[in-house]
Amino acid sequence: MFNTTLVNGQYSDSISVRDRGLAYGDGLFETIRVSKGEAEFLPEHLERLRKGCARLHIVCDLLQVRSDIAKLLAAHTDQIHSAVLKIVITREATGRSYQTDRYARSNRIISLVENRVSYLANQQQGVSVIVCDTRLAINPKIAGIKHLCRLENVLARAEWDNATIAEGLMLDTDGRLVEGTMSNIFLVREGRVLAPSVQRCGVDGVIRQHILYQVAPELGLGVSVCDLSLNHVYQADELFLSNSLIGVWPITSVGCHNKSIGCITRDIQRTLNCVPGV
Amino acid sequence: MFNTTLVNGQYSDSISVRDRGLAYGDGLFETIRVSKGEAEFLPEHLERLRKGCARLHIVCDLLQVRSDIAKLLAAHTDQIHSAVLKIVITREATGRSYQTDRYARSNRIISLVENRVSYLANQQQGVSVIVCDTRLAINPKIAGIKHLCRLENVLARAEWDNATIAEGLMLDTDGRLVEGTMSNIFLVREGRVLAPSVQRCGVDGVIRQHILYQVAPELGLGVSVCDLSLNHVYQADELFLSNSLIGVWPITSVGCHNKSIGCITRDIQRTLNCVPGV
Repeated sequence: MFNTTLVNGQYSDSISVRDRGLAYGDGLFETIRVSKGEAEFLPEHLERLRKGCARLHIVCDLLQVRSDIAKLLAAHTDQIHSAVLKIVITREATGRSYQTDRYARSNRIISLVENRVSYLANQQQGVSVIVCDTRLAINPKIAGIKHLCRLENVLARAEWDNATIAEGLMLDTDGRLVEGTMSNIFLVREGRVLAPSVQRCGVDGVIRQHILYQVAPELGLGVSVCDLSLNHVYQADELFLSNSLIGVWPITSVGCHNKSIGCITRDIQRTLNCVPGV
Repeated sequence: MFNTTLVNGQYSDSISVRDRGLAYGDGLFETIRVSKGEAEFLPEHLERLRKGCARLHIVCDLLQVRSDIAKLLAAHTDQIHSAVLKIVITREATGRSYQTDRYARSNRIISLVENRVSYLANQQQGVSVIVCDTRLAINPKIAGIKHLCRLENVLARAEWDNATIAEGLMLDTDGRLVEGTMSNIFLVREGRVLAPSVQRCGVDGVIRQHILYQVAPELGLGVSVCDLSLNHVYQADELFLSNSLIGVWPITSVGCHNKSIGCITRDIQRTLNCVPGV
């Protein structure tokens, strides 16, 4: 499988054992779908990365990130049809222990990996999900951004090993619905699109933003970002998941609660152009 | 400065860009003081590592960790008087994305770094601390263990850049006292030693355990692990910090609240043998 990485602009498969991303999760990442040579929603991903860096006071030269991406895509997209571009930015190790240096720069770890997984069947037929026991901790200071501290998601994803389950829903430690382990969740209720707030925890997905503020308005749908519970999930008319790789997956069951795939989910998929033929 | 690392038993300065410690903070660490060739409290550190691995379902062969440590110490302690041994264990990358494989092994990244910092002045004269704005999120599932997701501690440590401040105290998102950014905190009140619970968040330090369950009983002192607030801090008779590197630092001020160094703090230091001459 094709898999190549630029570390600070140079081809490399390794980083320093002293990298602060490894030591403390002191960094951010983005996962971007590459289709036919093009990195999809690249400006939006770079904008989220910029916001994340600003929140964590990590200095990152986005021009260099763009240049690395262009270099990887130019060199390798002839070889691959579908790929995943992963950007990891970590704060440069300068001080001792947790201490940082205000003049610290950052490290860029940018990988292009061939993607042989097709998401089409799940997009067309929908997916079964469970509700995870592992909760997301509440901390507004690091909520919304895609930082490297993802142990809760790892533990949640480890709760099932059944290939018929595609995703697990996560609640915060106060019991509010937040997201899937690797996706955002949307509810449809009486024609409105509802999404859980990511102000306390969770990731503000690029496709989430696009659905809420581009696709739904284009379709004339009202949207609400609000506090939601599992009861809202069970009572919703339609449910779907999104992320940059999977596009939109309708949810056909949550545990033992079955759901139908609704026309708003299909309209959103069509507008996102993520299910040819739907 | 002397600094050498074994990655899975081989001398190396680098790890794979695909390491799950970097990608997700999916691992654990220990920081151990090495004095005159001996890794202090090694059995206790390895026991905490074992517990952390069990909690995260990370498979780790502690015999190999011991063997790597012995190899590093045997090869290098003639060259150095005082050093820090850092153990990082990360889950092997096998599955895709957050998904793990139940048969995944782990990576061992074990470093020996010369320590030229003396903690003696702070041990003798005490330290000034502040209260950080950055809070610790509450998640009992990953509380107490020394996992790699330490972004909150990094952000808290970045709140001050004044060399006269030695540490910052951290509260949880509900306002309870938890710890310092890199240390545990203790209060003395009416002859009892009080320590914040680390059941919701925070790290259960090796020296914390040693003070609570060895040193304090040896001195005939009662101990309580309980919920504490900043008011308890301000009203305490004595305050001190501990970790494996610093030993015990008395606190002489918390923001504008001054504190005296008390005799129980001094007794604990003497018993820990961390301040010659006190």
